[in-house]
Amino acid sequence: MRLDVITLFPELITVPMGTSIMGRAQEKGAITVGVHDLREQGLGKHKQVDDTPYGGGQGMLLRPEPLFAALEKVHTESSRVILMSPAGKPFNQASALRLAQEEHLIFLSGHYEGMDQRVVDHWVDEELSLGDYVLTNGAIAAVVVMDAIVRLLPGVLGDDLSAVEESFGPAGLLEAPHYTKPAEFQGLRVPDILLSGNHGKIAEWRQQQALERTRKMRPDLLE
Amino acid sequence: MRLDVITLFPELITVPMGTSIMGRAQEKGAITVGVHDLREQGLGKHKQVDDTPYGGGQGMLLRPEPLFAALEKVHTESSRVILMSPAGKPFNQASALRLAQEEHLIFLSGHYEGMDQRVVDHWVDEELSLGDYVLTNGAIAAVVVMDAIVRLLPGVLGDDLSAVEESFGPAGLLEAPHYTKPAEFQGLRVPDILLSGNHGKIAEWRQQQALERTRKMRPDLLE
Repeated sequence: MRLDVITLFPELITVPMGTSIMGRAQEKGAITVGVHDLREQGLGKHKQVDDTPYGGGQGMLLRPEPLFAALEKVHTESSRVILMSPAGKPFNQASALRLAQEEHLIFLSGHYEGMDQRVVDHWVDEELSLGDYVLTNGAIAAVVVMDAIVRLLPGVLGDDLSAVEESFGPAGLLEAPHYTKPAEFQGLRVPDILLSGNHGKIAEWRQQQALERTRKMRPDLLE
Repeated sequence: MRLDVITLFPELITVPMGTSIMGRAQEKGAITVGVHDLREQGLGKHKQVDDTPYGGGQGMLLRPEPLFAALEKVHTESSRVILMSPAGKPFNQASALRLAQEEHLIFLSGHYEGMDQRVVDHWVDEELSLGDYVLTNGAIAAVVVMDAIVRLLPGVLGDDLSAVEESFGPAGLLEAPHYTKPAEFQGLRVPDILLSGNHGKIAEWRQQQALERTRKMRPDLLE
């Protein structure tokens, strides 16, 4: 998969995309990441990228020319353009699975300011929101969406990492609590059942814990 | 506000917290950020931080000793400890407003692996999830939550940035589309009404556009 991001803050993309699992996904060739500094397409000697809104109002807006220029450079027939915006559809695991099928994703994000609507109307295939909260910077949101997608690509996660699949997995429940060594620490003990070696009982305990936890934290998932 | 983050990937925190509005919030003294490398609390000469789960299962878990040691160093009476986890309560703007009242937040995050439940039971005040999707790395999620909180602190956003408040603002609607210069670009024109100078008509148009957009993108907000 190819991922391109057009942003005023390239380091907010390059650092997380170069770290840990996303960094390894690049090394393995599972993804190719292009980060494009919108400022390079800025107008005049001050490399202007924003201007005041027509019709009045507070804040600055990204002008269309720099965004059009940046998009024309990376857009192809197989591109899907995603705008991170509080006005978008809420992103979820189903969106991640769907977007993991794409060949090429291009991410746009406003900064604290929005962007000229003509960019949205002309280029954007899909507006996504991380959730019902407002961020200063859509670049951070783009990283979250890319992370959720990239981990689903073949070969990115090893088998030993699949434990976390269990939350929102086939059973639709949150995971049971997990424990590791030492068996006792500062007087806090691992539940006896997990040390019993009885795998049938352990599976039963985990199922019951997962249900209880889901009931307590996310009753909506049980409906 | 003081923000401490305990993580295996310090650069995933330091870079975004040092950039743009969050960087300026640090310079202005609105926030103090501490980033603590969990590896420094690792066990033995290999600085081990994780181990296999009791009772079997895939994946590795963060052991309690390094997390306890890191927490004991930064925790005070006024701390609130937040764990980013897909099992947490969904984060939203109301949580951001509530947490913006706190003096000291400490963020913990699992990597792709989870953590020993004794850490959660003993230390964690609140488990938060960004949304119904799974990430490889909770550090990215912590950045999103910190960004949403920090922008609400007094003096962090200038007056000229408050336009974005409109999404999820008092009216509970998404924002109307915005346009900036030039008035015509590649044959695409700004709506005439915005060039009219008639502020009453413009306000009316924006209200109607906000309603339409909310109906189309987020009908749930109108219920």
